[in-house]
Amino acid sequence: MDFPSKLLENAVNEMAQLPGIGKRTALRLVLHLLRQPIEQTTGLTTALDLLRNEIKYCRSCYAISDTNLCEICEKPSRDHSIICVVEDVRDVMALENTQLYKGIYHVLGGKISPIDGVGPSQLNILPLIDKVKNGGVTEIIFALSSTMEGDTTNFYIYKQIKDYEIITSTIARGIAVGDELQYADEVTLGRSLIHRVPFESSLKV
Amino acid sequence: MDFPSKLLENAVNEMAQLPGIGKRTALRLVLHLLRQPIEQTTGLTTALDLLRNEIKYCRSCYAISDTNLCEICEKPSRDHSIICVVEDVRDVMALENTQLYKGIYHVLGGKISPIDGVGPSQLNILPLIDKVKNGGVTEIIFALSSTMEGDTTNFYIYKQIKDYEIITSTIARGIAVGDELQYADEVTLGRSLIHRVPFESSLKV
Ligand SMILES: [Zn+2]
Ligand SMILES: [Zn+2]
Repeated sequence: MDFPSKLLENAVNEMAQLPGIGKRTALRLVLHLLRQPIEQTTGLTTALDLLRNEIKYCRSCYAISDTNLCEICEKPSRDHSIICVVEDVRDVMALENTQLYKGIYHVLGGKISPIDGVGPSQLNILPLIDKVKNGGVTEIIFALSSTMEGDTTNFYIYKQIKDYEIITSTIARGIAVGDELQYADEVTLGRSLIHRVPFESSLKV
Repeated sequence: MDFPSKLLENAVNEMAQLPGIGKRTALRLVLHLLRQPIEQTTGLTTALDLLRNEIKYCRSCYAISDTNLCEICEKPSRDHSIICVVEDVRDVMALENTQLYKGIYHVLGGKISPIDGVGPSQLNILPLIDKVKNGGVTEIIFALSSTMEGDTTNFYIYKQIKDYEIITSTIARGIAVGDELQYADEVTLGRSLIHRVPFESSLKV
């Protein structure tokens, strides 16, 4: 792409560094901003700079938070003995959305992935092990995505906590509510069958 | 969406104002920036702010430019008597890419669209008419997209310049080079047939 302006070219190149945004899309977005009042651009850039500079992570669960201790960890009504292990804050938001979970979270910030150069030390794994060692934890629920990286990460943590007297569990995998059996992949369908639940308990939710 | 952080929520909301970027995508992009070194965020925000604040439009053709007169208008080697009328700078970039056009451009900045509240006065139409009135123009090539808005805009300009001694033309519509006839829509195919060109001249490019 030959740009008629260096300023335009720079803006497009920076925008195109975002994942899933190609050069053409970046150009479309940047030209859109040029057509809008300047306040839309400054609104965006101010919000991004502010977030990146001021962002805090909860000192207990490592979720993104505006305060040192996040709203969830702060609440005495949450059961602090049950910890749900997730990859990032989107998982926290999704699980909170169900309004069914009353424990707290632990945000790893990623999954172990040798291919991407992500080892255990880059993730918030040690503080989780420490929580278990320090006592007071009764259950760890693994809620990472069921990929090889997710399974590796689960197992890495599991090995280090299995000798403590706690329950470990993973969230159930199966056919999504409302989905038809015939369209499910065989792995999901298989798990769904193996981990079948007593009919009475399926009526609860 | 319930956000665990106001800073995060603001950044996502601002990002989601970009066309084609929903809340989920915006959240994904913003979380990506948080995982990258801070330089990536400041690189993006600085480039956008700089572009929006410093952007110039060529005083002759109204294309985005870093200088008062753009590179194309500045070149004596370009034929300043032939003007190609386009909607925005992407069209200039696309046409320059062919390396076949030696005239200059006139960027309207949009198309007449009563539904979107865009009238002739919001576009750079008057300076184009003035150029024709002032003489020295021999041909106007309309290269707007062939939508109702494009046709309306072409015709609006055409009415005001038709009494001057100039050639007016529109770029040819037809089947894209390499495309198969059977997949072309009927309007394109029809135009392609009506505006057929002498075989000898089709061999030139
Ligand atoms: Zn927390
Ligand atoms: Zn120019």
